[in-house]
Amino acid sequence: MLYLIGLGLSSVEDITVRGLNVVRKSKRVYLEAYTSILMAASKEDLESFYGREVILADRELVESDSDSILKGADQNDISFCVVGDPFGATTHTDLVIRARELGIKVEAIHNASIMNAVGACGLQLYNFGQTVSLVFFLDNWKPDSFYDRIKENRDIGLHTLVLLDIKVKEQSFENMARGRLIYEPPRYMSIETAASQLLEIEQMRGENVYSPDTPCVAVSRLGSPQQTFVAATLSELANLESGNPLHSLVILGHRTHEMEIEYLLEFAQDKQKYKADVATEVEAAKAKIAPFVEDEEDN
Amino acid sequence: MLYLIGLGLSSVEDITVRGLNVVRKSKRVYLEAYTSILMAASKEDLESFYGREVILADRELVESDSDSILKGADQNDISFCVVGDPFGATTHTDLVIRARELGIKVEAIHNASIMNAVGACGLQLYNFGQTVSLVFFLDNWKPDSFYDRIKENRDIGLHTLVLLDIKVKEQSFENMARGRLIYEPPRYMSIETAASQLLEIEQMRGENVYSPDTPCVAVSRLGSPQQTFVAATLSELANLESGNPLHSLVILGHRTHEMEIEYLLEFAQDKQKYKADVATEVEAAKAKIAPFVEDEEDN
Repeated sequence: MLYLIGLGLSSVEDITVRGLNVVRKSKRVYLEAYTSILMAASKEDLESFYGREVILADRELVESDSDSILKGADQNDISFCVVGDPFGATTHTDLVIRARELGIKVEAIHNASIMNAVGACGLQLYNFGQTVSLVFFLDNWKPDSFYDRIKENRDIGLHTLVLLDIKVKEQSFENMARGRLIYEPPRYMSIETAASQLLEIEQMRGENVYSPDTPCVAVSRLGSPQQTFVAATLSELANLESGNPLHSLVILGHRTHEMEIEYLLEFAQDKQKYKADVATEVEAAKAKIAPFVEDEEDN
Repeated sequence: MLYLIGLGLSSVEDITVRGLNVVRKSKRVYLEAYTSILMAASKEDLESFYGREVILADRELVESDSDSILKGADQNDISFCVVGDPFGATTHTDLVIRARELGIKVEAIHNASIMNAVGACGLQLYNFGQTVSLVFFLDNWKPDSFYDRIKENRDIGLHTLVLLDIKVKEQSFENMARGRLIYEPPRYMSIETAASQLLEIEQMRGENVYSPDTPCVAVSRLGSPQQTFVAATLSELANLESGNPLHSLVILGHRTHEMEIEYLLEFAQDKQKYKADVATEVEAAKAKIAPFVEDEEDN
C-alpha cells in the first residue's frame, strides 16, 4: 500500500495519530521536500520522532523516478509524507495515477493545509474564491495570470488566498548551463515582496482589479506558535517586516461580513483606518457593479 | 487557554498528536455535536481513547451559553473539539470573539476538513470557486441562494463544492410549539436528495446554470475506510444509492483539466460516457461565454 500522509503545518506533532502509526510500520518513509516545508521540524526531528529513517524526495525523484518510490509497494507499506494535506499540490496526483497503473493500492491520511487553516484569520472559508499562486519575478519574467483570477474573484466579491512562492534546491542558470549540481540557498517569498509584486502588476495591467488601498490580511507562520496575522492595505503590507517564513496573503472581497471585520480588527494596527478602508472598498465595488447588473437583464 | 481542536474526518485516531496531548491535559473537554459528526467514533469511543470525560456541546450551549464553556479558561486549559477543522463553521468564530472579550487566550489546532480533503477526488483545489451549502427543503421553504453562487462559479469555469445539510437534535414544529423537549432522529442529506433538490431549483429558476447532464462527483464518507467517489451526471446521481453518511457533491466547472478527468474516470461507471459528458459541457460553456467576452470590451 502507498500511504499519502499529510503532516500538517508546523511541528512533528501535527501529524495525526493514525498517520504516525502508519509511518512507524512502513517499510520506507519519504518526505516530499520541494512544494512546502514543515516550519518547526527538520528531517532529523522527524526521524527521531518517528523512530524511522526519512528519505527526502525532491522534485526530480517524484516527477522523474516515481517508480523507485513505488518499488515494492504492492507487498509492503510505503509512506509518502507531504507538508499540509497530500492533495494540495498537483504533483501528488501524478504519483497516485502512476501507482494505479502499477496496480498498487493507495490511501490518503488527510491533514490541515493552508487551504482550510486560513480560516483562522477570521474570514469565512465559504467567502473565498479560487486560490492563486504568486512566483518570484525575474527582470524578464513576470507571469501575471493570477491577476485575471483575482479579478474573477473580486468581480463577485470573494476573498482571494494568494500562495507565495518557495524555491528549494534550485540551480542558478549558470550552474545549470554548466551542469554543476550546486544549489542556491532556499528562498521563501515574504509578504513585502508579494504585496510589491501584486502592485507592480496592477500598475502594468491597469484594470483596477485592486489598488494600494485594498484591504488585505498577511498570514505568517500559520499553525505555528509564531503565527501572526496583520490586517492592512496592500501598500502598507509592501512595507511590512513579515519575519520568518512561511507566508500567505489574503485579498479581501467586497462581500466581507460584519463579523469577519470584527474578527480582523484585532489584527489591525490602526483599527479605525482599516474599518474605513474596508467600507471604502465595499462602496467602490457597489458603484462598479451597478451598471454590470443592469447589463445582465439583456442576456 | 481555550483550545479549538480539529478532530479530522472519521476515526478517533484522526486527531493530531498535539491535539491529543492537549485534550489529555485539559480541565474540561467539549465536543461540538451539531455542525458535523465524526463518522466512525461515538462520544464513548472518544472518551475511552482520550481517557477523559467528553461533554457534548449542542447549538444551544455554544450559541446561548458560551460563557459556561469558557468558565475558568483564564486559569485552566479547556478543549473545544470540532469535527474537521475548527474554522469550518461560523459558530466557532463567535466563541473566539467571546473568549477575547473575556481576556481568555485562544489557540487553534488545525486538522483536515472537507474543504481541503475533497482534493482526494482528483479535482485540483485551486480550480474550486466558493463553497455552497444545501439545506433540506420543506414543502413551503426551499431556499435557493446557492443557485446564484453556483452560477457565479460556473460562469468562470470553476468547480463547486456543495455541502449537504445535517439535522441533529432538531425538534418538530409541533413539539417546539408545545414546548416539548423531544428531538427528531438525526438526518443526513444523501447524494440522491441533493441532486434532486439541485435539479428542482434549476427547473424553477430556469437560468440554465446546470442541467441533468452536468458532470459531478459524489463524495461519500470522505476520509473513512468506506470512502467512495462516483463520477456521474446530476440526473444519474439523483438515482444513486449513496449509502451511509456523510456526503458531499462537487459540480464540475468547464475549466476542468485533462489530468483531473483522467483521475476522475476511475470513479465513473461508464468511462466513455462520462468523458463525453465533460466534453459536451466544456463545448457548451465555450459557446455560452463567447458573446460575454465581447461585451466586456465596452466596460
